[in-house]
Amino acid sequence: MARKCSAAWRKTKTLLLLLLVSLSVSICVCKTSEEQMENMENTIVTEKKAEESHRQDSADLLIFILLLTLTILTIWLFKHRRFRFLHETGLAMIYGLIVGVILRYGIHVPRDVSNVTLSCQVNVSPATLLVNFSGKFYEYTLKGEISASEAKDVADNEMLRKVTFDPEVFFNILLPPIIFHAGYSLKRRHFFRNMGSILAYAFLGTVISCFVIGMLMYGCVVLMKQVSQLDGDFFFTDCLFFGAIVSATDPVTVLAIFNELQVDVDLYALLFGESVLNDAVAVVLSSSIVAYQPAGDNSHTFEVMALLKSFGMFLGVFSGSFALGVATGIVTALISFTFIHVFLDFQLLETALFFLMSWSTFLLAEACGFTGVVAVLFCGITQAHYTYNNLSPESQDRTKQLFELLDFLAENFIFSYMGLTLFTFQNHVFNPMFIVGAFVAVFLGRAANIYPLSFLLNLGRRNKIRSNFQHMMMFAGLRGAMTFALSIRDTATYARQMMFSTTLLIVFFTVWICGGGTTQMLSCQHIRVGVDADQDNSMSFSEGSERRSTKQESVWLFRIWYNFDHNYLKPILTHSGPPLTATLPPCCGPLAHFLTSPQAFENEGELKDDDSDLILSDRDLSLTYGDVTISTDALGGHTTAGAPGSTSEDLDRELTYGDHELVMRGTRLVLPMDDSEPTFSRPSP
Amino acid sequence: MARKCSAAWRKTKTLLLLLLVSLSVSICVCKTSEEQMENMENTIVTEKKAEESHRQDSADLLIFILLLTLTILTIWLFKHRRFRFLHETGLAMIYGLIVGVILRYGIHVPRDVSNVTLSCQVNVSPATLLVNFSGKFYEYTLKGEISASEAKDVADNEMLRKVTFDPEVFFNILLPPIIFHAGYSLKRRHFFRNMGSILAYAFLGTVISCFVIGMLMYGCVVLMKQVSQLDGDFFFTDCLFFGAIVSATDPVTVLAIFNELQVDVDLYALLFGESVLNDAVAVVLSSSIVAYQPAGDNSHTFEVMALLKSFGMFLGVFSGSFALGVATGIVTALISFTFIHVFLDFQLLETALFFLMSWSTFLLAEACGFTGVVAVLFCGITQAHYTYNNLSPESQDRTKQLFELLDFLAENFIFSYMGLTLFTFQNHVFNPMFIVGAFVAVFLGRAANIYPLSFLLNLGRRNKIRSNFQHMMMFAGLRGAMTFALSIRDTATYARQMMFSTTLLIVFFTVWICGGGTTQMLSCQHIRVGVDADQDNSMSFSEGSERRSTKQESVWLFRIWYNFDHNYLKPILTHSGPPLTATLPPCCGPLAHFLTSPQAFENEGELKDDDSDLILSDRDLSLTYGDVTISTDALGGHTTAGAPGSTSEDLDRELTYGDHELVMRGTRLVLPMDDSEPTFSRPSP
Repeated sequence: MARKCSAAWRKTKTLLLLLLVSLSVSICVCKTSEEQMENMENTIVTEKKAEESHRQDSADLLIFILLLTLTILTIWLFKHRRFRFLHETGLAMIYGLIVGVILRYGIHVPRDVSNVTLSCQVNVSPATLLVNFSGKFYEYTLKGEISASEAKDVADNEMLRKVTFDPEVFFNILLPPIIFHAGYSLKRRHFFRNMGSILAYAFLGTVISCFVIGMLMYGCVVLMKQVSQLDGDFFFTDCLFFGAIVSATDPVTVLAIFNELQVDVDLYALLFGESVLNDAVAVVLSSSIVAYQPAGDNSHTFEVMALLKSFGMFLGVFSGSFALGVATGIVTALISFTFIHVFLDFQLLETALFFLMSWSTFLLAEACGFTGVVAVLFCGITQAHYTYNNLSPESQDRTKQLFELLDFLAENFIFSYMGLTLFTFQNHVFNPMFIVGAFVAVFLGRAANIYPLSFLLNLGRRNKIRSNFQHMMMFAGLRGAMTFALSIRDTATYARQMMFSTTLLIVFFTVWICGGGTTQMLSCQHIRVGVDADQDNSMSFSEGSERRSTKQESVWLFRIWYNFDHNYLKPILTHSGPPLTATLPPCCGPLAHFLTSPQAFENEGELKDDDSDLILSDRDLSLTYGDVTISTDALGGHTTAGAPGSTSEDLDRELTYGDHELVMRGTRLVLPMDDSEPTFSRPSP
Repeated sequence: MARKCSAAWRKTKTLLLLLLVSLSVSICVCKTSEEQMENMENTIVTEKKAEESHRQDSADLLIFILLLTLTILTIWLFKHRRFRFLHETGLAMIYGLIVGVILRYGIHVPRDVSNVTLSCQVNVSPATLLVNFSGKFYEYTLKGEISASEAKDVADNEMLRKVTFDPEVFFNILLPPIIFHAGYSLKRRHFFRNMGSILAYAFLGTVISCFVIGMLMYGCVVLMKQVSQLDGDFFFTDCLFFGAIVSATDPVTVLAIFNELQVDVDLYALLFGESVLNDAVAVVLSSSIVAYQPAGDNSHTFEVMALLKSFGMFLGVFSGSFALGVATGIVTALISFTFIHVFLDFQLLETALFFLMSWSTFLLAEACGFTGVVAVLFCGITQAHYTYNNLSPESQDRTKQLFELLDFLAENFIFSYMGLTLFTFQNHVFNPMFIVGAFVAVFLGRAANIYPLSFLLNLGRRNKIRSNFQHMMMFAGLRGAMTFALSIRDTATYARQMMFSTTLLIVFFTVWICGGGTTQMLSCQHIRVGVDADQDNSMSFSEGSERRSTKQESVWLFRIWYNFDHNYLKPILTHSGPPLTATLPPCCGPLAHFLTSPQAFENEGELKDDDSDLILSDRDLSLTYGDVTISTDALGGHTTAGAPGSTSEDLDRELTYGDHELVMRGTRLVLPMDDSEPTFSRPSP
């Protein structure tokens, strides 16, 4: 024991040492660059300046990499000792804060006099600017508009400005892997079981929350105007925008603990599903609000036409992104379907293709004017549903690991940047009244989302969402990466700056306090932990009535979809599912033969339908297949698509067996169930 | 058979269809963006312009992603049908060329009138520019200097300029993973067996090649001046620079075929080792040549001091980068060594740490003014040697797969960009005389590297480098990613533009002609194929004298190093190798106890020393371990580090068994050897 302790102590010491070393390294790097910068002021050679700038950029990026490294090392210690009060994202923020303080106060920033302000009487601001400095032409690219007051600061704070990333980096580089991973790892079984509720929370709830927060903040702003606490414009659209960005929840901290403690799977599914979808809703909602532009000079009056236009834009962008994401997902499935023979030997190519197709979804959506993040989300869901089945087992592992790693790095990068930016951002506007108002509004907005909707949903659900679940969902409404990315995207006006500062505080508070208090809250609400998803399953299976009621709740929503998917889409897009010849009416025989892959016939005996992470046991496979064959035999060569007897049971079975726990952070592995269902005999094709 | 053919035909059709679709998609995207751009010209809103620019960027990137996707799909078909005449990189170039032609000639580029040229009588070109357009401040960042003649073109070719990446992208984003992967996958056994020759080719050979090419090109340039074929300045330093950049070989195409055909391992090791190291030499050499700046006005005269300074810079930068790379590699090894207990459960963290540490090596080197690429190379070698042993088997797979994927994507991106840039680059200078001269010079430079050095090396080697091997090495001197990245880095002057255009042609020629002709060349030179690395091994083992001679050739070079590494470094940095208590003299007992991990004692029975990709069979482990224990027992608790009897045999065995084929492109798996060496009994610790 003593030896173990001393080993742990040694590790802690090593860690502290590393922390000091890497901090001092980053500071040294900054200092050197500065000194070199001072020496440079005399030279006017452009190339050297560009080199210097590159060196500085490297140093800045190095700071973040070291931050991430430190975070990872500390997480190890935490995980090793089972600390649960602070999640890795919270930790990343703390390290970010420390480095931010050092950059802000610890380092003397010399005045860089080489900035020049030019005055031109032209009325346009071109994207590319050619400047003729005494006969030599230099090319400049537009970075953005800055306010006049800011203009004089630019020269002063070169260093702090350097460490500030282009906000678009978050949207175009860091968010996509996070969102894709979320979509890719959506737990299908529990997700579908609670789909109605999840959609209600995500769509209706987010809109409610957005408008409640918007109204409350408008009240707050009006009050502030009365007592002269407001130094700039703050319109109703700004309030609504604020409502939209803080309505995106990100309970990754909470879910990690849920996963570890094995909390009730339905609660998990509700929270995860809601947070994944409401990110998409919030991002489209906020862009629609920005697009609300009434005609005429005063762009902040109410106008029905503009509102309708905004609403139409919301629908258009959302459905466009959705369609695009699903379409590219299906294209990938088709490609992998076509090349499956070739696939088997070249997993590298397979993974690369998967990665590229996902990324091109994002780019295509952005290029078409849709929202890339939303497209990527639905692409991820589609890929998990179809393409995943066509990948070889090695590639399934590879792609999962790749996206897991990208997600992990991107998430921790964003959170440590959040910590850093609290001190390095130049234009913070901390208004105590606004901040208090925002906290109250966020709380009430969340309440207005969860409680009324849960009440309404419980009217329809037989498997009620209990009040302690509701409290937990209320409590788990953390704000995270998406909220931050949306708020930092535009910090040009006074209103936006105030929003950004307030949003930062909301994120800090929710991640540290709500995230840290999850374990306490769970025990306080008497939510049982240590529930094995499969135990839970078999239990509800034995309690026949409850099981059936759960089924009833969700089945009507997507029975048609399920039948269509299982009978037509899966056979066309994947090598699992029944052969089309069995599902299409006999008149379509030749077409069915053409579309069905030879493998589907070959594989008939060992049909795969593994939408889960785990490869299903043979028993499960034959079971799923059994249904189809029975109906095939009974109905003479084809299953009637609508036949409620077979497909509904089939669906029920898939909900129960067809899917397994998806392990989010790689700590738990759920084994396939072990209840004894009779195996159906395999017919000859 | 007929069915198989029709299936293949269907696949080909699908592929062609996909090609057409994706090309038309990318063109459509471009067209739409253009149209939108035209509509936009009336509006002057900056934000919308920025959005437009973002959309255009997405479309540009999408073109490349689709290119990569197409390449991957076609590679599949090629691999599937065992086409060997065209490598994936060659294919990527062809697709790039096609898209380049379309962009250049197929798309009407509207004149973008929104560019403004400002004239200022200031003598500096600041990195950040604030422009006051009628009261509003806009921030611009410096992109670079452009020539006056170019200035008028800027407006015309916005579209083509858009598709042109910042050259630094290649150096800072795409090259590092390629180089790291090369270092990480250096075949240790064959590399060390031929280390002397490899170092000679890489260092001496590259310098010889650089100067030979430089001289020849200077002659060519002088001749061109005589016949008035030269439209600008071209100094001797430019010629040397050209020599340096085209001296970096990249035989990835050839090696892929070698790997597939199982060509002689020594030839493989010579070519691979040389190409990995000469990249590093070429990049430092070229930057030293650029830094050659004699005092006074005329910066192109010969001056001893400047030459010495350049030479000193070469040594300084190279050794600095080397030291930095090795240092961070060792730090990573130490970290993974310290946290190995915690590691086991969290492979995600392990992979993430590994990735971040490798990247921070690059950034740290760049921030310190060293060459990041060189640092990353040696970091990769160090990591493969030490850190790899501390990773859990799952993490070993994960990291290898991750870097493999990054390498694959980066390489194909660079090659398809090469194809594209032949048509989209704005300032090509194709000078037939210079091009012919360059081809001759490159050929002669390579010859002056290989043949004289091989002759000299053969004087010392008993296992001669035969003449057919020399011809093959001569033939395999392809130019690739590094040459391209170095030449595109600076295309400001006339000389550099001519170099860039010529370099492109050299890369195309060598990759297509030399790469495509590898199989023919192999059979023409009667180089035996289908040699199993291990067969080869056991054969040479049975031919005792030859085996011993090979050993003699390399052993003197690094016997001391090997002993030091095996007895001290490995035990300190990894959990493999003998415990320090066994290797340090008895007086250092307490220190040895402190530094040795408890695991080293625990693991004593099953000592791992797997520097290879494959997990060694138990027999191998006990064999390697056997040596150490025998000497431990014989010499009473410690092995004398210099004892030639034990360590040299140990070394010999490690050279023979301790390492296995590293599979580069995942097509071949070499099994552990199967010759019957008696197993040593395992002693109790």
